[in-house]
Amino acid sequence: MTSSSRIAIDAMGGDEGLAVMLAGVAQARRRFPAMEFLLVGDEAAIREGLKNHPNLTAASEVVHAPEVVAGNEKPSQAIRRAKTTSMGVAIDLVKQGRAGAAVSSGNTGALMAMAKLSLRTMPGIDRPALAALLPSLGDNDLVMLDLGANTECDTRNLVQFAVMGAAYARTALDLQAPRVSLLNIGTEDQKGTDQIREAANQLRTALHLPMQFSGFIEGDRLSRGEVDVVVCDGFSGNIALKTAEGTARFVADLLKQAFRSSARSKIGFLISRPATDLLRNHLDPNNHNGAVFLGLNGLVVKSHGGANEIGVANACGVAAKMVRDDLTRRITEDLANFEAEAA
Amino acid sequence: MTSSSRIAIDAMGGDEGLAVMLAGVAQARRRFPAMEFLLVGDEAAIREGLKNHPNLTAASEVVHAPEVVAGNEKPSQAIRRAKTTSMGVAIDLVKQGRAGAAVSSGNTGALMAMAKLSLRTMPGIDRPALAALLPSLGDNDLVMLDLGANTECDTRNLVQFAVMGAAYARTALDLQAPRVSLLNIGTEDQKGTDQIREAANQLRTALHLPMQFSGFIEGDRLSRGEVDVVVCDGFSGNIALKTAEGTARFVADLLKQAFRSSARSKIGFLISRPATDLLRNHLDPNNHNGAVFLGLNGLVVKSHGGANEIGVANACGVAAKMVRDDLTRRITEDLANFEAEAA
Repeated sequence: MTSSSRIAIDAMGGDEGLAVMLAGVAQARRRFPAMEFLLVGDEAAIREGLKNHPNLTAASEVVHAPEVVAGNEKPSQAIRRAKTTSMGVAIDLVKQGRAGAAVSSGNTGALMAMAKLSLRTMPGIDRPALAALLPSLGDNDLVMLDLGANTECDTRNLVQFAVMGAAYARTALDLQAPRVSLLNIGTEDQKGTDQIREAANQLRTALHLPMQFSGFIEGDRLSRGEVDVVVCDGFSGNIALKTAEGTARFVADLLKQAFRSSARSKIGFLISRPATDLLRNHLDPNNHNGAVFLGLNGLVVKSHGGANEIGVANACGVAAKMVRDDLTRRITEDLANFEAEAA
Repeated sequence: MTSSSRIAIDAMGGDEGLAVMLAGVAQARRRFPAMEFLLVGDEAAIREGLKNHPNLTAASEVVHAPEVVAGNEKPSQAIRRAKTTSMGVAIDLVKQGRAGAAVSSGNTGALMAMAKLSLRTMPGIDRPALAALLPSLGDNDLVMLDLGANTECDTRNLVQFAVMGAAYARTALDLQAPRVSLLNIGTEDQKGTDQIREAANQLRTALHLPMQFSGFIEGDRLSRGEVDVVVCDGFSGNIALKTAEGTARFVADLLKQAFRSSARSKIGFLISRPATDLLRNHLDPNNHNGAVFLGLNGLVVKSHGGANEIGVANACGVAAKMVRDDLTRRITEDLANFEAEAA
């Protein structure tokens, strides 16, 4: 097998433990039969866990790493232990070319720091960005980036994020020419900061890239399914993402309170259970799992810390698609085209 | 009557028309019997409308203004017509001291521009801020500012917003010492921009102000009821507010789809109707109506463009409380105390 069909898995990271990671990877293996997996972590524990998954055993190799990055560990501390942790070794397998991508449910800050240090940014990219999938009313999820890797961004960063985000959407969402917007506080040309306005000017001229630039989008339209990629600096992206998560939970909490408010409502709740389950299913982060660090010389997927088996399988699915489409090369080509056009 | 018991109403602004404005003001009059109203707009139409509200007629005066600011009118254009529009005249009544506050459901940008130009910023305040009330799981609403008046903010702006927001929360929410947080992308000291970290340092030293500084808050905790005032620059505040609105609508839309998905769910919906009505009621913007421009030499309340009678009454209630507590003087005193302490 070649590196292009192999994914390195940090089998020890995340809050749910090894058994859930292995079950998730086994599920991904059934969906992507051509993929093989390098399972990184405590060798004895992984071999024991694999006994439940003969199908996965046949398609995987165990790579021993004695240590685990803690969920609350400072990134600056974690990177010093990179070579002995399951997270660090999984990333290193990508660097060595033994795997096409790495997947971890561990500490986000540590994963970002290790990935940057080990893989370095791609030529021509100033800063990598964290992109994630959000639920929407449209036919597909929404790609949003940056979500916190870069607190402040200049025009060049935003334009590069747009190009990388579009390439990612083509792969993860199977779209030909994703609709890309910049997050702003109004849709008129004069709204927002100088950086955002200038990024919009530059993206409008990028006529031959496989994307459609759709101008500015406001926070209240994010989930309407009107665009496929939303680009912003890491500060406002993080605020928007977390506010959306918090508001969804808030509305769900209010709904629960309301359903408990009377006997009649409790009965209504039981009867309409399939409907509320449908809602829960649509919003479940496991069904939108798989954030990625874009702009590095290698692919790294961040799975939710609390991802269940389905969530882990989806994160592996994102990795498998990126490996299949050779996303890093795609981004390199798109950027070169964009710069040739702008010149 | 004195200006301190009088509120100027832009009777013509907003999407719902004069009848809804008058019905809302009449309701506010019943809640605040000591208040009187200057109703600004087309005199004949207002007099005709007042026939339905004898109670309001007795407590109001009509001030004629021949023109109306359009909902989509550019602020730069609207301010040229300030002296002839119902919005501009209502603000001017505050400037002249004939009213303690002005309330408008009209064009937000135009209202902001006219209010700034006519009332000017308070001594010592660099920039006014737009503050609004958001629903939460706590006992009271959340005050959030700035929501879009200032795209970029320095440390001094953020600190002043905190002082003004706390004063507003004491008045609008009847709190003794509101809990104030800065919106950030993490709660650790080193998170965020230099401006935010330095604002936190300064607020930590403000020990004698009638507020408790509670450090940083992330977007996902906004509606948990853990703080009373959230301070941010206008860009991220606008993104957070609109993302929260959009997500609440998104979840409601999904819920509707889900309830329609089967006959069983439809029945469940009908039975649990009181519960979903309770939810709708909690999230209804009319129940949290009344955004304010803080930091001007005079009080201006922005009511939602689509506010109904209850919404208008709530916006008038916010104005009445601010007038009663002499909010402008309160902010002046708090700022002087803060600066004396910092010196």
